[in-house]
Amino acid sequence: MEQGLAYRLPPGSPPVARAAIIGLGLIGGSLGLALVQGGLAQEVVGYDRDGEAVQTAVRLGAVTRAAFSSEEAVAGAEIVFLAVPVGSLTKVAAAVAPFTAPGAIVTDTGSVKGDIVYAMENIFHSRAFYIGGHPMAGSEKAGIKAADRYLLENAVYVLTPTQNTDSGALSRLQGLLKALGARVITMDPEEHDLVVAGVSHLPHLLAVSLMQTAGELSREHPITLMLAAGGFRDTTRIAAGNPEMWRDIFLSNRQAILKVLQLWRRQVEALEGVIAREDAMELEAVLQHARHLRNQVPARQKGLLPTLHEIVVTVPDRPGVIGRMASALGGAGINIIDLEILRVREGEGGSIRLAFTTAEAAAGALEILQGMGINARIL
Amino acid sequence: MEQGLAYRLPPGSPPVARAAIIGLGLIGGSLGLALVQGGLAQEVVGYDRDGEAVQTAVRLGAVTRAAFSSEEAVAGAEIVFLAVPVGSLTKVAAAVAPFTAPGAIVTDTGSVKGDIVYAMENIFHSRAFYIGGHPMAGSEKAGIKAADRYLLENAVYVLTPTQNTDSGALSRLQGLLKALGARVITMDPEEHDLVVAGVSHLPHLLAVSLMQTAGELSREHPITLMLAAGGFRDTTRIAAGNPEMWRDIFLSNRQAILKVLQLWRRQVEALEGVIAREDAMELEAVLQHARHLRNQVPARQKGLLPTLHEIVVTVPDRPGVIGRMASALGGAGINIIDLEILRVREGEGGSIRLAFTTAEAAAGALEILQGMGINARIL
Repeated sequence: MEQGLAYRLPPGSPPVARAAIIGLGLIGGSLGLALVQGGLAQEVVGYDRDGEAVQTAVRLGAVTRAAFSSEEAVAGAEIVFLAVPVGSLTKVAAAVAPFTAPGAIVTDTGSVKGDIVYAMENIFHSRAFYIGGHPMAGSEKAGIKAADRYLLENAVYVLTPTQNTDSGALSRLQGLLKALGARVITMDPEEHDLVVAGVSHLPHLLAVSLMQTAGELSREHPITLMLAAGGFRDTTRIAAGNPEMWRDIFLSNRQAILKVLQLWRRQVEALEGVIAREDAMELEAVLQHARHLRNQVPARQKGLLPTLHEIVVTVPDRPGVIGRMASALGGAGINIIDLEILRVREGEGGSIRLAFTTAEAAAGALEILQGMGINARIL
Repeated sequence: MEQGLAYRLPPGSPPVARAAIIGLGLIGGSLGLALVQGGLAQEVVGYDRDGEAVQTAVRLGAVTRAAFSSEEAVAGAEIVFLAVPVGSLTKVAAAVAPFTAPGAIVTDTGSVKGDIVYAMENIFHSRAFYIGGHPMAGSEKAGIKAADRYLLENAVYVLTPTQNTDSGALSRLQGLLKALGARVITMDPEEHDLVVAGVSHLPHLLAVSLMQTAGELSREHPITLMLAAGGFRDTTRIAAGNPEMWRDIFLSNRQAILKVLQLWRRQVEALEGVIAREDAMELEAVLQHARHLRNQVPARQKGLLPTLHEIVVTVPDRPGVIGRMASALGGAGINIIDLEILRVREGEGGSIRLAFTTAEAAAGALEILQGMGINARIL
C-alpha cells in the first residue's frame, strides 16, 4: 500500500534541518503539523502577521519556534513555504527575498500560478530556487484552528516548474512533498490556471450565481430555500466558501476564468436552445454525454487513488443505525474506509454508501448487514 | 418527537382497503413498500408495462397483487398513485380514467405540475378526485430494485391543489402521506414549477453544462478530469442522473426553466462584469451575499426538520477510524443521527461531520472523541 509510505522520507534523504512557513492559516498550519509531527523537519520556524495565529501555531505544535517577522523566519531556512493569500504573495516574497538563505528552496501554496510564477522567479532570481506550488486540499473551515496534520495526505499537490527551474531543487521539493503523503504532479503554470479555472473556479462561480438566483426567487416565493433539497445543496455547497479568499482567486485568475466562462456559456446556450426548441433527441444526447463524462471522473483517477469496493445500504430514519452498523462491522474486523450519506433528502438517514479496501471486506459487510435485517447491496 | 408518528395513521383513520400503483419504479415501489409494510393499505395492486419490474415488486412485497393492465389495477382502488414518467402521465391517466372507481383519489408523483395538473383534472373530472403530487425524494439509483420503504420518510411531499380540488379528498391524501412519514406541504402548481425549476432543474442544467465544459477542456488538457476535486464533484454529482428522466423534466417544465435561466443569466453576467473590471469590493460583496444565502438554507428549514447539534472531527487517512468512533459513541449510548464525510479531498478520510439530536449528546461525543486523541470541535 502506498499509504504506508506517508511520513517517511525517501531512503537516504535526511530530514530538513530548518523549514520556514510564512502565513499560518489552514495550509501553512497543516504543513507545519505534518513536517513537525512527521519528523520531516528538525525545526519549523513560523510567522504570521496575526499574533494570535502564531500563538495557536506554537500551542498546536505546527511550528517549533515563532519568528517576530517574516524576514527573521526565512533566515537560515533550507525550505520556505509562502502560505499567504494569493493577493499578497509577491509583496511578501519581495520583503523576504533578501533574507532568504542562498540556495534555499522557496515555494508558495497559492491556487493561481501563471504570471505570478514568473514574477516570483524574478524576485528570488540568483538567490533562492523558487518553484510554484498548489496543494489541492482545503477544509470547510479556514485558519490555523482548522489545521490538520493529514490535510495533504493523498491530496493532489501541483508543482509548476518552468524552463528556469533548477531540477535538483525540484526533485528535493517533490521528495519532501511525497514524504508528506501528497500526490505530486507537475504542470505548466498556464495550463494549471486554465484547468483549475475549469474544475475549481468556474464551479464556484456557478454555485454563487445559483445561490443568488435562488435568493432572487425567494423574495417572491419564500418557500424556495426550504425546498432546496439534496441536489441543490450539493451544487451550492462551495458557495459558502471564504469571500475574501475567493475574491482574490477570481481576480488573480481573471483571464483564465473569463476564458472558461466563454467555453461554458456556449454549453449553456446550446442546452437552452435545445430545451426551447423541444429537441428531445438532442437533449437526451447531451444529458447522456454529461453523464458519461461525470462517470469518467473517478475512472480517470484510478492509479492515483485506490479503488474502493462499495456497498449501499438503505436505513430507516432512526437514531443509532449508523453506530450499530459500524459497531457490527468493527466487531467482525471489517474496516469501513469511507462512509457517505447519499443526500437523497434532508434528514437523518436514507441511503448510505460504505466503502472497503477489498472485495472480500465488502462481501463480508453485505452479509453481516443483511443478517441484521438491513437492506444492502453491492454498488 | 414527530418521528414517532411515522407509519401510524391519524387517530380514527382506517387503513386504505385497496390502493393501486401504476408505475413500479423507485417512487412507485417505495410507496408500495411503505403502504404494505406500514400497514396503511390492506391491498396494494400494482402494474408496470415492464413485466420484470412487476415480478420484482411482488417479490419485494411492494405490491400485494400484480395486475395485468393499468385498467385492471385501478379498478376498485380507493386511491391510485400514477408513478409513471412525467412524459407519459396524461396518456396513462386517459387510459385508466374510465376504469377508476367513482370517488377514488388519484394522484401522481411527477416533478412538474403546472398545465399537467389542469389536464389531469379534466381527465378525471366528474369521476375521481385528482390532486397533483411531487414527493421530493430520490436515490442515486433508479428502478424498483432501489425501492426503499423509508424513501418518503421525512421527505418533503408537495401537493398542488387548485380551486377545483375537493377539500375532503385533499385532507384524506394529506393524512395518508403524513402517515407515510412525509412532510406534506401544499403549493400552487405554477409556483411549484417555478421554485422547483430554480432549486432543482437549474442546478441540474448547470451541472450538465459544467461537466460539458470540463469535457471540452479535457480534450486539450487530459489532466482536467483528474484534477476535478471535491468542489467539482459536489457541483456535478447530479449530472450523473438518468438522462431520459431529465429530458422529460426539462421539456415538461420548459417555460419555468427558461424563466429561471433568465434570472440566473443576469446573476452570472453581473458576476462576470465585476471580475472583468476587477471590482474587488463589489466582488467580495457578491460572495458575502451568496454565503449568507447559502447559510440560510438549513436555518430556514427549522421546524420542518429537526435542529441538529453537530461536531466536526479530523481523522487520519487510516482504515477503521469511522468504525472505532461510532463504536465508542455507541458504547456510551450516544446516537449519531447523521454522519457526513466533508469531501475536502478525494481519499478515504478527512473531516467528518457528526450530528446529534441534543446538545448534551454532542458535548458527550466531543469529550469521548477527544479522549481517544481525535481532533474534534463543536460546529
